[in-house]
Amino acid sequence: MKTVYFDNAATTQIRSEVINKMTEVMRNDYGNASSSHSFGRSSKSLIENSRKAIASYLNVSAGEIVFTSGGTEADNLVLQSVVRDLKVKHIITSKIEHHAILHTIEQLEKEYDLAISYVNVDKTGTIDYAHLEELLDISKKTLVSLMHINNEIGNILDIKRVAGLCKDKDALFHSDTVQSVGHYALDLQEVQLDFLAVAAHKFHGPKGVGFAFIRKNSGLKPLIFGGEQERGLRAGTESVHNIVGIEEALKHAYDNLDKESAYVRSLKQYFIEQLKLKIPLIKFNGNSGDMDKGTYTLVNVCLPVSPEKASMLLFQLDLKGIACSKGSACQSGSSKGSHVLAEILSDEDLSKPSIRFSFSIYNTKDEVDYVINVLNELITSSLN
Amino acid sequence: MKTVYFDNAATTQIRSEVINKMTEVMRNDYGNASSSHSFGRSSKSLIENSRKAIASYLNVSAGEIVFTSGGTEADNLVLQSVVRDLKVKHIITSKIEHHAILHTIEQLEKEYDLAISYVNVDKTGTIDYAHLEELLDISKKTLVSLMHINNEIGNILDIKRVAGLCKDKDALFHSDTVQSVGHYALDLQEVQLDFLAVAAHKFHGPKGVGFAFIRKNSGLKPLIFGGEQERGLRAGTESVHNIVGIEEALKHAYDNLDKESAYVRSLKQYFIEQLKLKIPLIKFNGNSGDMDKGTYTLVNVCLPVSPEKASMLLFQLDLKGIACSKGSACQSGSSKGSHVLAEILSDEDLSKPSIRFSFSIYNTKDEVDYVINVLNELITSSLN
Repeated sequence: MKTVYFDNAATTQIRSEVINKMTEVMRNDYGNASSSHSFGRSSKSLIENSRKAIASYLNVSAGEIVFTSGGTEADNLVLQSVVRDLKVKHIITSKIEHHAILHTIEQLEKEYDLAISYVNVDKTGTIDYAHLEELLDISKKTLVSLMHINNEIGNILDIKRVAGLCKDKDALFHSDTVQSVGHYALDLQEVQLDFLAVAAHKFHGPKGVGFAFIRKNSGLKPLIFGGEQERGLRAGTESVHNIVGIEEALKHAYDNLDKESAYVRSLKQYFIEQLKLKIPLIKFNGNSGDMDKGTYTLVNVCLPVSPEKASMLLFQLDLKGIACSKGSACQSGSSKGSHVLAEILSDEDLSKPSIRFSFSIYNTKDEVDYVINVLNELITSSLN
Repeated sequence: MKTVYFDNAATTQIRSEVINKMTEVMRNDYGNASSSHSFGRSSKSLIENSRKAIASYLNVSAGEIVFTSGGTEADNLVLQSVVRDLKVKHIITSKIEHHAILHTIEQLEKEYDLAISYVNVDKTGTIDYAHLEELLDISKKTLVSLMHINNEIGNILDIKRVAGLCKDKDALFHSDTVQSVGHYALDLQEVQLDFLAVAAHKFHGPKGVGFAFIRKNSGLKPLIFGGEQERGLRAGTESVHNIVGIEEALKHAYDNLDKESAYVRSLKQYFIEQLKLKIPLIKFNGNSGDMDKGTYTLVNVCLPVSPEKASMLLFQLDLKGIACSKGSACQSGSSKGSHVLAEILSDEDLSKPSIRFSFSIYNTKDEVDYVINVLNELITSSLN
């Protein structure tokens, strides 16, 4: 059966160069990076070279990159430690953040004396910057946690502006950049945020590895205690093959960024045009229909289908070999709908099926045509 | 140059069958296990089949296996949650545990109303079971955390006895089994412990994956919050290739356990005989010279070398291509000596170099001969 993978915001196919390098490391470099002998030093040097390279892509120091098991762990490391160790008393976030942020904050709220403010978002999911500034006018030690690119609706935050506001008000700024690093260039000397979280599997790297950027002298302490790995910030024997894998993936992503992002952007552009042509009643959620305000990697659409038939749509697409998503993959198993769309859509639109299609370099124009045709067929038949 | 890897307690070479399977998964199964479409279901089924197989090796239910990024994370998940969520007020452990236990407990002590007791150990590092029983006679909610096999001196704990004591006194029992699972059969219906921690890279699996066994209805909550992965106990996109890798490694370990453990045991036996023959003044630390009371995978020896020359010994072994360890790899980078040996050795013996040699199926009798000769040479010259 023909299969089309349009769920690249959930996870991506690993580049074959990345797999080859990881396999090579697994075969030849099995030393424990904490061991002082030659086997250990060889692993250590693979890790430190990866760290240096990654730091250079983001224009930071190698010591500011802390490898983790993924984006979620990196988010948790930052959020849990700023509250426990830096004594942050106020977190400003939004209701359309990833659950790695929202659920962690909910847990911290139970344990600590902590105030949570949610910055307003409008019907397109755009952050109200004036409201953010207002919320920042509070004398408590504050952390702002706002994601760079929303994983469901693709909205791009003006992180430079937010970083500036935070600097002005002496607040810390953490950004979940899981959907942006590897897809957008990011210069952390220009954007003065304090922390960010990254996951390799969103840019054709392996699952189970990511990193936190933690600006120097932040005072953070570990989430996971034990050995002295990662300069004492993250205990546990390093996953050398995965760490080499994230670096290799990021290298390819940034080496080919202009060409590859232009290609993926053209697919999205074409997808939008065809959707508007074939399904005129379609609506674009968030800023995902806007080529500038939304990321080039995804669209999230509200389809003109009756509520009764809505529930079957994703199932029918799957039967046709099309992989896409209701919202973030992390909640697709649960019976609840998207908390992001619940925040920004009208009740009427919420009753209709919304679907996220997300693209990568491995997709083609032919696949777009196929998906548009199947969608059109399903919607036309469901309208009858 | 000839190289001999005798540091298998730090980490092991990955089996080629494991690497092949992981590579296959990375090439073909890149779906996010939380996605409901065919790509996601395929990853989900790889994970769930791995979980079922692992559960069967330990004779537990699949739902009691929670995949983590390694043994250290599994230890942290258990320790942090029993204190935070189960309101444990008293932890009994020993001073010769791994730092993943000791440093996590030290952190918890700072944050919570928590009493820590250290059970006595004798000069061989053997737990004083009578003292443990005494310590258990306390009306506070208690967790016992004692490792099954000590990573530095190889002492084997009678975990069945400890589990029985804990059951009698209504205490929870966690065991770091990082050095035993994959090397010894373990039936968790027979040994009624509540929690254990495992790392794949200690039995020829990949680095960066492990699991916690968490007995049903334990009430534990996550260390890492976010998505609903691992039945809500560990958020973050699953590292499918690593999870398949740990299962494949454990399958081979247990399928070949009798044959392989007999082989490694014979290497250790031969190593001990030759050491006694060639270096009569050698001492065996802990129970590592005893074929029954210590694990068959390692010996830890105190060498008759003057303190002045001691510091060069490991360096000289490395120059001869021999990889071994002062203590656990996790602390080899630090300037401090082994906290385990500090607890059990006399000051005189502590001033001499102690070295851990640890073996695997990939070692040979020839390698033992080479190491013995080099050791003998170095010691003879240092005695002169």
